[in-house]
Amino acid sequence: MLEQIDINKKISKEKYKEEITGLTAELGVQQRNLREKKIPVIMVFEGWAAAGKGTMINNLLQYLDPRGASVYSIHEPNEEERLRPFLWRFWVRTPEAGRIAVFDRSWCCHVIDNIRKKPLPDDETAKAYADINAFERQLADNGAVLLKFFLHIGKKEQKKRFRCLENDKTMSWRVSKKDKKQNKQYRIYLAEYEQMIRETDSASAPWYIIESMQERFAEIKILQTIVQTLSARLCCPAHSATAVGSYAAASILDAVNLARSMKQDEYSKRLEHGQRRLRELEHLVYQKRLPVIIAYEGSDAAGKGGNIRRVTANLDPRGYEVIPIAAPNDIEKAHHYLWRFWKHIPKAGHIAIFDRTWYGRVLVERAEGFASDNEWQRAYREINEMEQHLCAFGAVLIKFWLQIDQEEQLLRFREREQNESKKWKITDEDWRNREKWNIYRQAVDEMLCRTSTASAPWVVVESNCKLYARIKTIETIIKRIEDKL
Amino acid sequence: MLEQIDINKKISKEKYKEEITGLTAELGVQQRNLREKKIPVIMVFEGWAAAGKGTMINNLLQYLDPRGASVYSIHEPNEEERLRPFLWRFWVRTPEAGRIAVFDRSWCCHVIDNIRKKPLPDDETAKAYADINAFERQLADNGAVLLKFFLHIGKKEQKKRFRCLENDKTMSWRVSKKDKKQNKQYRIYLAEYEQMIRETDSASAPWYIIESMQERFAEIKILQTIVQTLSARLCCPAHSATAVGSYAAASILDAVNLARSMKQDEYSKRLEHGQRRLRELEHLVYQKRLPVIIAYEGSDAAGKGGNIRRVTANLDPRGYEVIPIAAPNDIEKAHHYLWRFWKHIPKAGHIAIFDRTWYGRVLVERAEGFASDNEWQRAYREINEMEQHLCAFGAVLIKFWLQIDQEEQLLRFREREQNESKKWKITDEDWRNREKWNIYRQAVDEMLCRTSTASAPWVVVESNCKLYARIKTIETIIKRIEDKL
Repeated sequence: MLEQIDINKKISKEKYKEEITGLTAELGVQQRNLREKKIPVIMVFEGWAAAGKGTMINNLLQYLDPRGASVYSIHEPNEEERLRPFLWRFWVRTPEAGRIAVFDRSWCCHVIDNIRKKPLPDDETAKAYADINAFERQLADNGAVLLKFFLHIGKKEQKKRFRCLENDKTMSWRVSKKDKKQNKQYRIYLAEYEQMIRETDSASAPWYIIESMQERFAEIKILQTIVQTLSARLCCPAHSATAVGSYAAASILDAVNLARSMKQDEYSKRLEHGQRRLRELEHLVYQKRLPVIIAYEGSDAAGKGGNIRRVTANLDPRGYEVIPIAAPNDIEKAHHYLWRFWKHIPKAGHIAIFDRTWYGRVLVERAEGFASDNEWQRAYREINEMEQHLCAFGAVLIKFWLQIDQEEQLLRFREREQNESKKWKITDEDWRNREKWNIYRQAVDEMLCRTSTASAPWVVVESNCKLYARIKTIETIIKRIEDKL
Repeated sequence: MLEQIDINKKISKEKYKEEITGLTAELGVQQRNLREKKIPVIMVFEGWAAAGKGTMINNLLQYLDPRGASVYSIHEPNEEERLRPFLWRFWVRTPEAGRIAVFDRSWCCHVIDNIRKKPLPDDETAKAYADINAFERQLADNGAVLLKFFLHIGKKEQKKRFRCLENDKTMSWRVSKKDKKQNKQYRIYLAEYEQMIRETDSASAPWYIIESMQERFAEIKILQTIVQTLSARLCCPAHSATAVGSYAAASILDAVNLARSMKQDEYSKRLEHGQRRLRELEHLVYQKRLPVIIAYEGSDAAGKGGNIRRVTANLDPRGYEVIPIAAPNDIEKAHHYLWRFWKHIPKAGHIAIFDRTWYGRVLVERAEGFASDNEWQRAYREINEMEQHLCAFGAVLIKFWLQIDQEEQLLRFREREQNESKKWKITDEDWRNREKWNIYRQAVDEMLCRTSTASAPWVVVESNCKLYARIKTIETIIKRIEDKL
């Protein structure tokens, strides 16, 4: 999930100046309101060595009233701390109502740093994450606002920053052996950080990934996130409501290369080969009693239907089912929103293809206001729990997000309108949704970020070229099933 | 925890008739209100074989409008069900908004029945319980009311009921080999049931233990619990508010034998011996770096102070600390209620004795309305989580509830008033609390039930005789520390 993020985001000096003044003024007002309303705030900074945690915290402090904020730098536990349960040193530092506590590194160190020194057994890691989640939930239930930032930079950039520091005599001491090891083993650390974020991301204590290649960008995104969160909590809209959050959105989608395409020749060859292999796998899936669930989501006119038809073209109809999901009917509305999907969970040995899914909760229901804020925010966890349950049962769960850009969508809408046989596919609603492009984009991005898990990762399918998209989905399905068998 | 419950409760035929009419009328009204307000209700019946689950469900159905209720009898999963994740068959049976679903056995079967056939590995058991908790939380978050009943009978009674059934030709088929095995291995099952209740007890889906030796009593308690819960949910007080719940309270305390006492001779001998041993253990605790936490709670004038003084009389003051807990000060009030206790967590190797504890949240704060319903109901889980964290760190956590009866308390209050040197100990507040004896009693009972865990069990100390109480605490402490060392 971290890898899919476009970390190279930048903003200009002029834009920075324009933003920073409004944001810091707003933050000042908010801090006073927090004190008055006795709301405690906890901010956590985690991230790569040399990603700029110290700088960001220093900058942030400039904008806060120092009488209402404390910073805690978390290092190796000392003697006093080692003799107590690991949460102790964090519990005693939780802020008083109305105050802000900023943590430079956090309770997650207990898992992340221990993994390096002396790996915790799986069981203990799970327990430690459960302890951490309970800790954060208890604070949030008691009224605290929790904001967790992960500062993300690439391997090369980290190496460059280390070299810069080392060349500066007054700074060279800051680069430790441990830091250098982190750079060498970047990919291993990456997986661990992803696990940490996945395990401890929750509606009441969410992680925000901060693209930190450029200091200016990182600072603005952090401030925007803080101001936005506090303003929601203080129940008063931020002054610059439209600007706020504009940088917070669409990190994963930004990195998608929609120019990817495929020629007809190659397509035909790979399609035929893929469809033949899928048929073979369908039989193996049945013999081995493997449950397979394929979930399709995507922008309107991204080509879900055509894509699914290519997947199923050569399959034995007794072994698969396509489940089209429309707006819920009255009976479905009278149940938990996950109920109608549970009803369609395939038997082991069968393949279920969902054309739209349970993710409607955090997409259309969020964007259109059919679900309350609390409902869709809670849904990330609920969905992750459902998918975890399916995967633990042994299911292969494949999730596709079919992405096209606005221009391509316009072309396809127009084409549908002019084509008698496709005219039914385009409705006023499609045009309305199109106007909310940016709202949907943010919802999609947050969905990809919060529900991409190790056992059920999202696959973003670049779909401006339908041929490319179809081959990518078919070959992904083949690979995932083969891996499992 | 189940063992400590007084299962022999009975009510007379007259009392039963008096109660049942009001309760069932109320239930009828509530069912109509539930439908109108579109609230789904889920009731679960678990318990010992032959404890009367079937009878209770049958009776209950007589009082409900059958058009709004469904009963699901849960057996071994069939072919269709085995081919899907274990929660599937329960998800698809969750009731529509406004309807009542009654489960004869439940999703807990997955763990409980599997343990018998092919024990799940620890890891899987923990995962299954996590799945169950997530399932129940998701339903409750969506507005469902969940009520879970555990029907409890003793080993002898179960055997007697089996014999009765077997002697009846039309009924003998109902006693299976599995049932008989349960009776033979009663104690093993008991531990498993306790684990099940502990792992899946939550504020939004609580367990209610039903003493089921007498059918009349069990039925009234079940109906009272249902009416009480629904009335809280429907935000309208039940008609017979004072009667409701009168049987629901004080199951554990009822079973406490306050007549236990000890002669001065024996006391002196055992006290001297115990205090000497405690001193030795204090040194071992330090050498082995064992953290020890001793928590004292009890009625006013139950003798906590004197009891603690006997424990510490012979200890080296560098190795222990007594932490008296009064009402929180302003700084403490501005933090999470657990914060002030975290500050006093002893270093490994030290003994901390809390004179009153974090349980104030579910005792005085509940009874006096200092904590909201949501806050004290949530606290059972929060406290269990904190204690789990301490125990996982290796702490020995010993929790004493010092119990006296109302007469003994009155005697001691009077004595304090008349004794110049003790007069300061008695305040108007003590007299006021005394008037709320039954409210406190229910709070204590629920606390004992919901927070007695395998690693941190409550020890109820019969304290009408101070000598007996002191020896019991000292010897309990010795045993728990020795076991751990």
